[in-house]
Amino acid sequence: MPSASPAPSAGPAAGRRGRPGYDQQSVLNIAVEVFNRHGYDATSMGILAENLGISKSAIYHHVPSKEDLLALALDHALGGLESVWEAPEAQAGTAEERLEFVVRSTVRVLTERLPFVTLLLRLRGNTETERAALERRRSFDRQVASLIEDARAEGTIRKDIDPRTVSRLLFGTINSIVEWYRPGGPLSPEKLAEDVVAVLFDGLHTRS
Amino acid sequence: MPSASPAPSAGPAAGRRGRPGYDQQSVLNIAVEVFNRHGYDATSMGILAENLGISKSAIYHHVPSKEDLLALALDHALGGLESVWEAPEAQAGTAEERLEFVVRSTVRVLTERLPFVTLLLRLRGNTETERAALERRRSFDRQVASLIEDARAEGTIRKDIDPRTVSRLLFGTINSIVEWYRPGGPLSPEKLAEDVVAVLFDGLHTRS
Repeated sequence: MPSASPAPSAGPAAGRRGRPGYDQQSVLNIAVEVFNRHGYDATSMGILAENLGISKSAIYHHVPSKEDLLALALDHALGGLESVWEAPEAQAGTAEERLEFVVRSTVRVLTERLPFVTLLLRLRGNTETERAALERRRSFDRQVASLIEDARAEGTIRKDIDPRTVSRLLFGTINSIVEWYRPGGPLSPEKLAEDVVAVLFDGLHTRS
Repeated sequence: MPSASPAPSAGPAAGRRGRPGYDQQSVLNIAVEVFNRHGYDATSMGILAENLGISKSAIYHHVPSKEDLLALALDHALGGLESVWEAPEAQAGTAEERLEFVVRSTVRVLTERLPFVTLLLRLRGNTETERAALERRRSFDRQVASLIEDARAEGTIRKDIDPRTVSRLLFGTINSIVEWYRPGGPLSPEKLAEDVVAVLFDGLHTRS
């Protein structure tokens, strides 16, 4: 699992904090599991400490606060999603080709950073950190919606469905993966991405 | 909104309980909104009473307990889904035709009983009532999975995707509707059902 870039609020020293046995990334991995299990709001630093098997004060050696852990976790999810647009395949070719690439890559990020994206998708927007993350997520969604518009305009995506509905159904299909996909099982991330692209673009019908 | 059939634990007299100003169905409608907003576990009878604008003891004139309200609500969602199989179109025709009918009808139930199905889809299985509802939901899912198998066997549904993945993506697309669909908006339930069937079976690509 690649390291999350530190959120601004964690401060430049955050990456150098730590104690023997844990580094910040492994604290983060466990914290995200606990957030997903109990809900972020219901998770106290005490519950986190219990799950990490260290004292509350030891957690503060790794991060200044629970909200900083959340910020780091959400940045890991969003950073992965946003990096999709940096690939050359997201920038060249027909809108349809770019849209397929973005769908495939989004599925890959979901599977690779599954608990982090799960946390992102379950946010309720109760804190400033959550609202900032939701705004970054909406910005990602808007870029996809714009690609859908371009694909309609070039005539490769059907026009009988409102583009907002297309966008909702596309994200509905992709995002629901976090509810059932289990990494390490018989379905590889690559085959899953291929299946999602196949169903979304060509449908379930047999083609003659 | 048709009346939910009373859950067994509510007893045959449940429908005749009540006080001026509220009947059991309107108590149920408000309770479901509150459960969805706060989560079932976090909703106390006190919070319910506050939202209903009546005293806690007045709620007990309508239903014996919070769990009975949950049972009635879940039965309303599940009863709607299960009724899909009773229509003649679910029983005759090719497997593909029956599957399309079931998808269309499931979307209609979702839109007509939106808060009830939302509650069902967010269940965590912490109580006996929840576990019984989840078992009924799994039984519905198994019937759909069996229809997918039949459609593969007759050659109308593609065979390059594992039927479990097909089933997951199909339910992922359908169930995600509860997260964004708003009844009374520009998108009618009928057009939404048509769009979902179009995307799932024929895909987003323009067909020549």
